[in-house]
Amino acid sequence: LGGDGFCGWPTALHLSAQGRDVLIVDNLSRRKIDVELACDSLTPIATMEDRLEAWREVSGREIRFAKIDLARDPSALLELLKTERPGGVVHFAEQRAAPYSMKSSAHKIYTVNNNVNATNNLLCAIVESGLDVHLVHLGTMGVYGYDSSGKPIPEGYLTVTADGKEREIPYPPSPGSIYHMTKVLDAQMFAFYARNDLLRITDLHQGIVWGTNTKETSADERLINRFDYDGDYGTVLNRFLMQGAIGHPLTVHGSGGQKRAFIHIRNTVECVRLALENPPERGARVEIFNQVTETHTVRDLAAIVSKKTGVEIRHLRNPRIEAEANELAVTNDKFMNLGLDPVTLEEGLLDEVISVARKYADRCDPSRILSTSKWRADIEIDERIEESVSPL
Amino acid sequence: LGGDGFCGWPTALHLSAQGRDVLIVDNLSRRKIDVELACDSLTPIATMEDRLEAWREVSGREIRFAKIDLARDPSALLELLKTERPGGVVHFAEQRAAPYSMKSSAHKIYTVNNNVNATNNLLCAIVESGLDVHLVHLGTMGVYGYDSSGKPIPEGYLTVTADGKEREIPYPPSPGSIYHMTKVLDAQMFAFYARNDLLRITDLHQGIVWGTNTKETSADERLINRFDYDGDYGTVLNRFLMQGAIGHPLTVHGSGGQKRAFIHIRNTVECVRLALENPPERGARVEIFNQVTETHTVRDLAAIVSKKTGVEIRHLRNPRIEAEANELAVTNDKFMNLGLDPVTLEEGLLDEVISVARKYADRCDPSRILSTSKWRADIEIDERIEESVSPL
Repeated sequence: LGGDGFCGWPTALHLSAQGRDVLIVDNLSRRKIDVELACDSLTPIATMEDRLEAWREVSGREIRFAKIDLARDPSALLELLKTERPGGVVHFAEQRAAPYSMKSSAHKIYTVNNNVNATNNLLCAIVESGLDVHLVHLGTMGVYGYDSSGKPIPEGYLTVTADGKEREIPYPPSPGSIYHMTKVLDAQMFAFYARNDLLRITDLHQGIVWGTNTKETSADERLINRFDYDGDYGTVLNRFLMQGAIGHPLTVHGSGGQKRAFIHIRNTVECVRLALENPPERGARVEIFNQVTETHTVRDLAAIVSKKTGVEIRHLRNPRIEAEANELAVTNDKFMNLGLDPVTLEEGLLDEVISVARKYADRCDPSRILSTSKWRADIEIDERIEESVSPL
Repeated sequence: LGGDGFCGWPTALHLSAQGRDVLIVDNLSRRKIDVELACDSLTPIATMEDRLEAWREVSGREIRFAKIDLARDPSALLELLKTERPGGVVHFAEQRAAPYSMKSSAHKIYTVNNNVNATNNLLCAIVESGLDVHLVHLGTMGVYGYDSSGKPIPEGYLTVTADGKEREIPYPPSPGSIYHMTKVLDAQMFAFYARNDLLRITDLHQGIVWGTNTKETSADERLINRFDYDGDYGTVLNRFLMQGAIGHPLTVHGSGGQKRAFIHIRNTVECVRLALENPPERGARVEIFNQVTETHTVRDLAAIVSKKTGVEIRHLRNPRIEAEANELAVTNDKFMNLGLDPVTLEEGLLDEVISVARKYADRCDPSRILSTSKWRADIEIDERIEESVSPL
């Protein structure tokens, strides 16, 4: 579900390459948002039809596609489940950008309405279908918040002592945007349906994704993955790499002391596969994995990319409401124990991303680089950078 | 908001009687659900127009009415806020019955869609209006769940020790139905908007309401409040009182060992007023009150009503997924300190409810008394009682 998006598409290919029978459900909302924002992926994205034809040619495998709006058409989803009887459902079908979710009331309303109803409609459909299907959901590290206790963030559950008794509770959430809040709402729905309906659910608390291509998306230009560089959908490291590639100042929000967790898109697709292969027992609580491989401050990332590309760093006023700086440590034992091989920043893939960005630099609209969303009306932001921008 | 419903209507009258300028917003959805379920309130409910005309005659005060669907028409709500510039907003505008929320996928989807969007649309509108308005929301004790630790449930926040440090966290929720789950989702949204947008929000975790009339609704027959006796909307004590009044066996789900918190409708309206009069500081966390006055087991309530009316008790298979029996203690210090005077079961109001039920007994459709909702497809329930039912 959501197999046309930045994480969904390479995951669909990866699962297909692993021999699974994959059917993508998507309403193509991400492409429609490109139109709304008048900003395309830096990489040219083929139509779904061309993508699937290319995959057929390259791999000899068939991926099918059903255009369904999960949030608006629950009965179509139920019919599909009844017909296809999937063994697993991977749920990426949500609006996934924090700045987009904070642009205006209309964007807040869309994000909550779309994400909450998509998830609840899916859960209802699984219950009504009677299938014992494993649901794997792409969540976010952002549900935890960044008010660090100094201890590594555990995988979903925290052991506490209250009233003299020890118990394990869901890690108290502290989402930093409407988008992140919807993932907290998802988590509450998962907890209810796992308890009441005995659904098997795995929630992946993913860090910030970087990179563009996986082994499978590199096999043909028509299979190329999205590369979002704009102020709404671009994720921080990819934005720096693209800015470095075209000679645009590296734009750091605030001090850059914000420490965040990261994962490469190649690890994303592997993690989803590993999660699918390891469902919780029926009747168990929601299984939660921290889907991250390393942590860095935004400032350090900017310094690395600046050194690589020679492009200067600019500190802009932060449009978000968040701590200037924070500590962060994250447990990722579960995926490590399942054999995940982390792709870290040292492994040369930064250069690969820069070269992808350079290759498609002529598709970049520099006016879309800065974020125009702000977290509250009284926040002042920098809406432009004085220097002219010229590709290197 | 939701001022046409069981709690909303008497609260609107109470606030008006206290000299506040009251405007009711409602989409009349509760009346439409009566049509869907083919079951009316036991008491005859006047149209909104007649209700407001009666209040004008009785009190000399004007309550205005705007028919707006909060979940579907956020811009109408925003316009209203901008025009009216209220000092307080009381939010009852949600689907409020657990059995109704569990009837089918369609009912689950409606409840989540309606309740989540109503709350989020309201929060967005308050933010966009720029008003410093105090939002008071009717929540439920049911968000806490009933897996008692033996200690009294605190008012919203729990002090725990984790990683050697003490901190206060939102009480970990454990909702028992889709309806209750939506109140947990509300709570997460309130926490976000209080933190990000500095909204002043009070969430009232209310027990099960009993009784029908308040001082104000008793002033004229056209002002009478709803009395729901059906398997979907009837609350447990009111259902027993009505069953006792018409000679229908008192139907206990399971053992009746479930202990729950209760409050009389007269106290509900006072609590909402007290909460309105005591807003949290701007920038403070969400204020949470436990809106309850006493706790009882379902079995004990049935015994009290059986003794009063001579009607026998029948134990039916429980359609819900919940513990057979539980302990429950609840802190309600905040309202007690604000001067709440509890209306308890001992104070003769049981007889008043029975006499209301007897007065309108001819409006009862006995086929609507038993609950037909069940919490999971594999649960077996009793859909009828063998004995014939005749009013006393």
